[in-house]
Amino acid sequence: MTTNTQSNRRIVLASRPQGAPTAANFQLEETAIPVPAAGQVLLRTEYLSLDPYMRGRMSDGPSYAEPVALGEVMVGGTVSRVEQSMHPDFKVGDRVQGYAGWQDYALSDGTALVKLAPDMQQPSQALGVLGMPGFTAYMGLLDIGQPKAGETLVVAAASGAVGSVVGQIGKILGCRVVGIAGGADKCGYVTDELGFDACIDRRDPDFAAQLASACPNGIDVYYENVGGAVFDAVLPLLNTGARVPVCGLIAHYNDTELPAGPDRLGLLTRTLLVKRIRMQGFIIFDDYAHRYPEFFTQMNQWLQDGRIQFREDIIDGLEQAPEGLIGLLQGHNFGKLIVRV
Amino acid sequence: MTTNTQSNRRIVLASRPQGAPTAANFQLEETAIPVPAAGQVLLRTEYLSLDPYMRGRMSDGPSYAEPVALGEVMVGGTVSRVEQSMHPDFKVGDRVQGYAGWQDYALSDGTALVKLAPDMQQPSQALGVLGMPGFTAYMGLLDIGQPKAGETLVVAAASGAVGSVVGQIGKILGCRVVGIAGGADKCGYVTDELGFDACIDRRDPDFAAQLASACPNGIDVYYENVGGAVFDAVLPLLNTGARVPVCGLIAHYNDTELPAGPDRLGLLTRTLLVKRIRMQGFIIFDDYAHRYPEFFTQMNQWLQDGRIQFREDIIDGLEQAPEGLIGLLQGHNFGKLIVRV
Repeated sequence: MTTNTQSNRRIVLASRPQGAPTAANFQLEETAIPVPAAGQVLLRTEYLSLDPYMRGRMSDGPSYAEPVALGEVMVGGTVSRVEQSMHPDFKVGDRVQGYAGWQDYALSDGTALVKLAPDMQQPSQALGVLGMPGFTAYMGLLDIGQPKAGETLVVAAASGAVGSVVGQIGKILGCRVVGIAGGADKCGYVTDELGFDACIDRRDPDFAAQLASACPNGIDVYYENVGGAVFDAVLPLLNTGARVPVCGLIAHYNDTELPAGPDRLGLLTRTLLVKRIRMQGFIIFDDYAHRYPEFFTQMNQWLQDGRIQFREDIIDGLEQAPEGLIGLLQGHNFGKLIVRV
Repeated sequence: MTTNTQSNRRIVLASRPQGAPTAANFQLEETAIPVPAAGQVLLRTEYLSLDPYMRGRMSDGPSYAEPVALGEVMVGGTVSRVEQSMHPDFKVGDRVQGYAGWQDYALSDGTALVKLAPDMQQPSQALGVLGMPGFTAYMGLLDIGQPKAGETLVVAAASGAVGSVVGQIGKILGCRVVGIAGGADKCGYVTDELGFDACIDRRDPDFAAQLASACPNGIDVYYENVGGAVFDAVLPLLNTGARVPVCGLIAHYNDTELPAGPDRLGLLTRTLLVKRIRMQGFIIFDDYAHRYPEFFTQMNQWLQDGRIQFREDIIDGLEQAPEGLIGLLQGHNFGKLIVRV
């Protein structure tokens, strides 16, 4: 058991960020590799997923999930190998998707572990197009967005893990799909590689006017992942009967106070009223866990048929995870951000 | 035909209000009684409904319906008698519900006219509990609010035409129902006559604290008819998975500008996200016209069984309609406001 001579590197939450997280909010520790008890497995992390929701877990304000405690390992989805097994359902060498967090090794009693097929070509996809981001894209668009052929679908963060899948599903369904992304590179990728009808650079000074031009028939479905100035440009373009699945608000995650007025809360509710708009937040596994098999089957088929492309932005080394997350919240990643541990 | 010797009094929109409407925005005119052509009927108005949506039609900003043109008769739902008929489907003496507007007489080609039963005990109910307000209450609550037994339903404008019906349906379905109304008289009526579990006076200085106390398990369904300070008190109490049908925003109809900051638009969308809330506007006949028969049958049954009470606030004389609407927007009415013409 050579692994026992090594240590377990883990990254814990050292302090809670005020505004944007910094490297000082994280601490790399080395501990002994844990030993599985009866009914447990020891997991060796291969891939760690970095996702926007992690910013929320670093704060202790009210949210939909418990915050990470100070001194505790940062949460995160992982693909791991079973290194030791004292559990009847897992054997050494099995590859599993789970939530081992930001560390080399973790124990598990098997809860929420999903075995991956031994011949899976690209296991990191279990953290992306076939995992939480892909599932989030699929359910939010289909169940809340309910797009119909010929409608206009606008997708924020269009080159990202969720947005890229949302838009491609929209194309499969026959929508006009307009993406919003940060920078010419990402916009080019969204139209040229992903096949969106248009992609607007949110950094352009005339972004709002460009978006309006790209949506001559207004917006029927807006898949919200961003908020802020992007939503401000979308709001006046929403059509009567529009649907707005609210998946994320990355522009606001580092906010420390409400922006200056005027107060547009009443403007938003009035828009929902007079245009009969449905706006609905969702948390993927809380709301839709029972529909994961349906998603997996369909998405796997689309991947095999080449109808869905998925870009990964892979960084090497667990110690890079803090900078990875900090950059993700600023839009520096290009594709699904994953750490190869 | 004695009526031909009379004139037709009608109230037209004289000017568009800035903020709250005033009597000067309306003008009472007298014209000749119109004469029906082939395929038309002449209607004599018996009852005219006054409703909050009329404020929107007085403005020419973008909304869900065309504004009333300057110099044109104010729109409104009516119960009328057929006084002359050149239409094969209607005979003199038929009582019909339609949209004759603020006037004694109107022509109709039969479009959107609904014949009322000759033995209808209280024809004005066709403008209230069995008409648009009741239908609005029924569909918004059941289709968007989706209340379940044991959940907490909060109803704004609880003594009004829509809110009173919403809350009573909620009680029939087994909800805890908390009303919000303006003044002790209305609150007493809501609990004592309508059977709500509690009713909070929105004018009380500690209104928000009282509402929180009345909702110890939070709010699962909030039927929005008001906006403003009422919604501000509701927002922090909304539970995970709450539903918010947006039927009206009477607190804002006279607004001329957005309120001062901070800007809480992002706060609202964040609340929708982290609590997975569905907030949805609707316009009753645009969204649900096809379900009117289902509503009518059910509501008629509830009325016959004494399970729904409905209060009317009847004022006499067409010339009183402007003051009636002005007062309605300030909450002066107590029950469904109707003009006996």
